[in-house]
Amino acid sequence: MKTNSQPIGIFDSGLGGLTVIKEIIHLLPHEDLIYLGDTARVPYGEKCPETVIKYALQNAKFLTNKKVKCVVIACNTAAAFSLEKLNESLSLSCLGVIEPGAEAAVKATRSGKIGIIGTTGTIESNAYVKAIKRLNQSIEVFCQACPLFVPLVEEAWHVHPITHQIAEIYLRFCFEKSIDTLILGCTHYPLLKKIISDILGPEIFLIDSAITLAEKLAGLLIKEGLLNSQSLQGKHTFFVTDMPKKFYNLGKLFLKENVFPVEHIDITNY
Amino acid sequence: MKTNSQPIGIFDSGLGGLTVIKEIIHLLPHEDLIYLGDTARVPYGEKCPETVIKYALQNAKFLTNKKVKCVVIACNTAAAFSLEKLNESLSLSCLGVIEPGAEAAVKATRSGKIGIIGTTGTIESNAYVKAIKRLNQSIEVFCQACPLFVPLVEEAWHVHPITHQIAEIYLRFCFEKSIDTLILGCTHYPLLKKIISDILGPEIFLIDSAITLAEKLAGLLIKEGLLNSQSLQGKHTFFVTDMPKKFYNLGKLFLKENVFPVEHIDITNY
Repeated sequence: MKTNSQPIGIFDSGLGGLTVIKEIIHLLPHEDLIYLGDTARVPYGEKCPETVIKYALQNAKFLTNKKVKCVVIACNTAAAFSLEKLNESLSLSCLGVIEPGAEAAVKATRSGKIGIIGTTGTIESNAYVKAIKRLNQSIEVFCQACPLFVPLVEEAWHVHPITHQIAEIYLRFCFEKSIDTLILGCTHYPLLKKIISDILGPEIFLIDSAITLAEKLAGLLIKEGLLNSQSLQGKHTFFVTDMPKKFYNLGKLFLKENVFPVEHIDITNY
Repeated sequence: MKTNSQPIGIFDSGLGGLTVIKEIIHLLPHEDLIYLGDTARVPYGEKCPETVIKYALQNAKFLTNKKVKCVVIACNTAAAFSLEKLNESLSLSCLGVIEPGAEAAVKATRSGKIGIIGTTGTIESNAYVKAIKRLNQSIEVFCQACPLFVPLVEEAWHVHPITHQIAEIYLRFCFEKSIDTLILGCTHYPLLKKIISDILGPEIFLIDSAITLAEKLAGLLIKEGLLNSQSLQGKHTFFVTDMPKKFYNLGKLFLKENVFPVEHIDITNY
């Protein structure tokens, strides 16, 4: 039996999901949140579907043991590969970043040409393309894997001139294919928004999957009668599977507030 | 009881160790080799010591089950954190990349100023610094973590102008500190040798840990009477814990020959 006072569970392969947490806190300030960053096995973006599904199931198990009322997959690769599996095996609602981003892009496009950038795993999964085609078969979709973006953000080079040059190379396809809407298909990419919008200009609309996911989550909680009715600011608890130090240091960059408390757990027991 | 016809076991966090295999094949062509790339949990470079030691023990267990005559830790981070632990718990010789590299650098330096580049994990472990200081207390050592080098090599940008620019930033300390010897403290870095030596010029001597390790291994096998006496080319077998596809594609870049056959195994059972 689920009650509205239970926390929301969110998992990600590492730090990136903190951009999702940030938008959830912004939209749903009274919710208690439990975040799990699987930093011992990050990144998921270059791993094969079977491995990612196995990791996602362990992460979800950890969160359901913490009595969450729903599970958010904040990692694009994990959402791409494991949402269906998780919805089959969990007895609560499970939400990924892919569908909300795809819906927002389909609503936003005028030309019917959408671009997607993400990790190799997310792009090769074709999950965004399938989600967009389910909504509108006639939309043209163009994809580009950007494997250097995550390490650049984690080096805190998110506004560095070299990152600008690399982004120019990765984003060339946006002009060549005349897209008018670009999905930032990785939770690290909102930190590159300034560089990306400087390169693409005002004509290309950026879809931030973190924002669209938070909106979808709010809708789900309202529909299921599970909005937390407390008037206090919600409690936020963080778990990681490795190296809380880096999580602390970079966490603030992603979340715009201190990531605290962080507890180190062993995920292989789940 | 060890015999000279047993294979040599080599493990790495992923692909990088293939540069080590390349040098071992070059120096010891008649040896049978078993390589394990822990691609499901790569990279080790940003993970904490406890996690890396746990992974290293599992990898070594897999290799000893394959009846290897010695174990080579081709990953700098794994060698930095786990060599001592592995030597304690295995009943055969275990060799890491750190000590041979440190010895070669101490022999090479004239000015007594050595530089080290590596992943965050390797640099923070201080393993090279300790190994050098054990050999010669008076040598000055200067370190620089280069977290973007691995993803740049894996994007196959090892001769890209942007990689040159990034290397110029990372290597600035070499001139500021007037070093005359630089240890390439990561198995991916031999692929960046061209760019690194273009930037540093002929005055700074580069130590390639893969080459120094292969030489040390040859010495060990001779000393222990374990050199394979077959006149044929040795057999090379590859195991990975995830995604053989990327391993195939990038393997040739590292090894300069086809990586074949590759078998996908589950390491968590070890």
